[in-house]
Parts: sequence; C-alpha cells; structure tokens
Amino acid sequence: MIGIVIVSHSPLIAEGVKQLASEMTQGRVKILSAGGLDDTTIGTNTERIYRALLEANTSDGVLVLADLGSAVLSSQAAIEMLPEADQNHVLISNAPLVEGAIVAAVQASIGEALEAVNAAAEAASTMNKLQ
Amino acid sequence: MIGIVIVSHSPLIAEGVKQLASEMTQGRVKILSAGGLDDTTIGTNTERIYRALLEANTSDGVLVLADLGSAVLSSQAAIEMLPEADQNHVLISNAPLVEGAIVAAVQASIGEALEAVNAAAEAASTMNKLQ
Repeated sequence: MIGIVIVSHSPLIAEGVKQLASEMTQGRVKILSAGGLDDTTIGTNTERIYRALLEANTSDGVLVLADLGSAVLSSQAAIEMLPEADQNHVLISNAPLVEGAIVAAVQASIGEALEAVNAAAEAASTMNKLQ
Repeated sequence: MIGIVIVSHSPLIAEGVKQLASEMTQGRVKILSAGGLDDTTIGTNTERIYRALLEANTSDGVLVLADLGSAVLSSQAAIEMLPEADQNHVLISNAPLVEGAIVAAVQASIGEALEAVNAAAEAASTMNKLQ
C-alpha cells in the first residue's frame, strides 16, 4: 500500500487533512503531515517534508499532495534528499489538496498502485460538489 | 468587499484555511471558518455555518467554500436560515477548498464582485502546481 504525505503552508491544514483522510479510511493508510515552517508558523520546511517522506515510505511508493506551487518546490527539494533509489517511488500530485487527499486515501486503502492513486486524486479537480 | 466562509468537515482545516488566506491578504478580507461538528469533532454543523454567514455578511455578499458535497448540503441548509433578502447574496463555490479560498481572498481584497471572485476561485481547479 502506498503512503501519503500532506504538504501545506499551514500546519493546521496539513494536520486536518491527515486526520480527515485517516478517519475516512479508518486509519488503514499511512498518512503523514508536513505543514508549516514549524508547528505554528505559516510556510514550508524541506526538512519536515523529508522526515515525513522517510516515515511514509513503503515499497509501493509515496504520493505527495501540496497546497501551492511553492510547497511543490519544497517537496521537490525534500525528494532530492532521499536516497536515489527511493526518489523514483515518490510522486508529487497536481490534485487539489483536501479533495485530492481524500480520494487518494480511499484509493490507496483498496491497494491501488501509485500512478492510479494519483490519477484518481487529480481527477478530483473536476468533481462537481454542487450536484 | 465580499465576505468569505470556509466550511470543512475538519475544524483544523477550516481554521487553517482561514489563517492562510487571511495572512496572504493581510487581514483585509472578512474570512470566517465553520469547520467540524464542534471544535474537535469531524463533521459539519449547520448552526456553526449559519453563525459564520451572519458574521461574514456584508452588503457585497458572501462566498462559501466547502470541502465535500455533504458540506455543501449543510451550507445550503444554513443559507435557508438567513432572512430571504440575504439569501440571494450568498453563493456556494464549486472551487477546491484551499486553492479556491486563497484565490478568492486575493480577488475579494482588490474589491472584485461576488460572481467574479467565485469565477476566479473555481478556475483554481485548473491551475498547474507542478510548473
């Protein structure tokens, strides 16, 4: 089963997305949060993301969900700190953070592979919530 | 200037989105959070959303951003509790929660009207974060 890392400029958002996605999948998926510069300051922190990647890492890979472009840059830097063999098993998603994380967690929980989980998460951007 | 209400099943996400969008617009926009069943329980609460709508209400209207379809249903119920004249000034967005809230706050801060703010927020779903 793949792992999931939630990267947000806000520590509250990252932790909240982790909790929500974990609750919706009854804790069956390894979901790590890496939000904020620290626990109370808005920003991103490559070292925090790196540690989350290490902890989420399974042989099936890790999907990273990020809130904004600059969170993607920090995630890319964190991935480059991983051993080269692990770097290929980590994918940064273009999915919307909250909606994508929930879809990703559900797909991961049923054992979907990394690329399939990411495709489903990215498709969340076209969901119509108003129906 | 329009007001913004953030509705999430997670109180942490709602509060985090409020903080992040407020920080990115230097507190110039009235942004209210209405997350969770209560401050610590995942769910949505029509009464909490209603109170946030009342507080966010300006003569220019309110944009509601929600995480999932069931948050939209609770938001609709909360809107129906408002005086009829106010109901027409509240719009529920189909935008992704975090990304849409940030775009909406920025657009609101420069004085854009309700429909224009919503259109910009909804367009956030097509942003490419990976560029």
